[in-house]
Amino acid sequence: MSKFKIIVEYLGENYSGWQIQEGKKTIQGEITSAIKSVTGEDVVVSGSGRTDAGVSANAQVASFSISKDITAERLLKALNAKLPNDIAVKSAQIVPADFDARFSAKTKTYNYYFYINQIRSPLKDRFALQVPYADVRLMNDACRYLVGTFDFKSFVARNSGKNNFVRTIYSASVEHIYGDLYVFKICGNGFLYNMVRIIVGTLVSVGQGKLKPTDMATIIAARDRTKAGKTVPAVGLMLSSVEYNEN
Amino acid sequence: MSKFKIIVEYLGENYSGWQIQEGKKTIQGEITSAIKSVTGEDVVVSGSGRTDAGVSANAQVASFSISKDITAERLLKALNAKLPNDIAVKSAQIVPADFDARFSAKTKTYNYYFYINQIRSPLKDRFALQVPYADVRLMNDACRYLVGTFDFKSFVARNSGKNNFVRTIYSASVEHIYGDLYVFKICGNGFLYNMVRIIVGTLVSVGQGKLKPTDMATIIAARDRTKAGKTVPAVGLMLSSVEYNEN
Repeated sequence: MSKFKIIVEYLGENYSGWQIQEGKKTIQGEITSAIKSVTGEDVVVSGSGRTDAGVSANAQVASFSISKDITAERLLKALNAKLPNDIAVKSAQIVPADFDARFSAKTKTYNYYFYINQIRSPLKDRFALQVPYADVRLMNDACRYLVGTFDFKSFVARNSGKNNFVRTIYSASVEHIYGDLYVFKICGNGFLYNMVRIIVGTLVSVGQGKLKPTDMATIIAARDRTKAGKTVPAVGLMLSSVEYNEN
Repeated sequence: MSKFKIIVEYLGENYSGWQIQEGKKTIQGEITSAIKSVTGEDVVVSGSGRTDAGVSANAQVASFSISKDITAERLLKALNAKLPNDIAVKSAQIVPADFDARFSAKTKTYNYYFYINQIRSPLKDRFALQVPYADVRLMNDACRYLVGTFDFKSFVARNSGKNNFVRTIYSASVEHIYGDLYVFKICGNGFLYNMVRIIVGTLVSVGQGKLKPTDMATIIAARDRTKAGKTVPAVGLMLSSVEYNEN
């Protein structure tokens, strides 16, 4: 029995998110099927977290145990031969038996891409949100209030089914990439359902002068979804990396 | 009667190229229809050049004359409201009557994106070619032989129907973008059918050691398509810019 850790890149647009759901195409479902065709085994694939429908990942992390005697290198090649073109295993390694992609994860970083332009861009619309106008300095002022340990109930979809909304955010900022293209980067110990997309919707309202940067603190304190901005589309969101303790 | 110059961005993947063809979806066809619905006029839209099926453009240039009295700003908005999501007019301006997007063009720059990795990348596969291995220094050595005025018959699809293969290339080089991602940039006074894609196929053979950099000069001199490399896929190709004389 070997425990494997894999890093997976995927385009989310054709999937109903990470998690296996009856009758739907999901990333976890495709990976589970690929492992079954390579090893003949029915395994439980643990992901670092569930990405929503339509969300892509640069480096999602997953783990699973298999009985078949196979090297990490051969497993990687065999899985990539079975997986559809919009999912790829970038690396595979054997890890200690107590490693779990979800429970061992320390922090996750999400990126949300957007471009500020009155005119839509067909090339950028594939991976970024169009924002007609916004002041990025105001957005960055508002980001400061997100860093820390807070109850983020204002930033969770109402049907999430969760009851612990406390999460720690280590960093949050908007960075310029080139031209009119920007990325919002947020690193934390975990994220609630739709949390990043609701935060971005709120930041856009700040950037457009509909809210003040300090309103971010008030909205967090309110623990009320109706106080925050709208949920922006999945297209701009990317699970960028998952960090684990060294060893 | 006013002559307009427009700059157009498009995703080529759903189109049979630039040029209007009976029964096919083309960029020129969509723009011509959009102008018809805005102005009621049947106009001839001149493009700086024909992009092949599947090829995208960051800044294609087109020109046409219309009788309707309309400002460039209103025309831009009206066209974008009519055009499909994968085509957008980025700018519009009124130009002198003798301007023609094709005949007034001085140089064009094409970019071809590729990434060097044994493992495919679903995110990069949308706009770049996977090259399993290649030495970029060798590719750049070969690029030097492309600069100048030559008969490029070795680099034209055999069914092109052209008989003048002389073109001037002003610059050609491979640049590193980030990580495993590279772009081949080529600027010239004009390009033959599939020329950039055959040049890239030849450069990949050089990068992989199947040809020497100096073979590029031999291949140009041969005026024989069978001596050059294969035609790489359209997905990595982008018409990046078209340059005109100031005035």
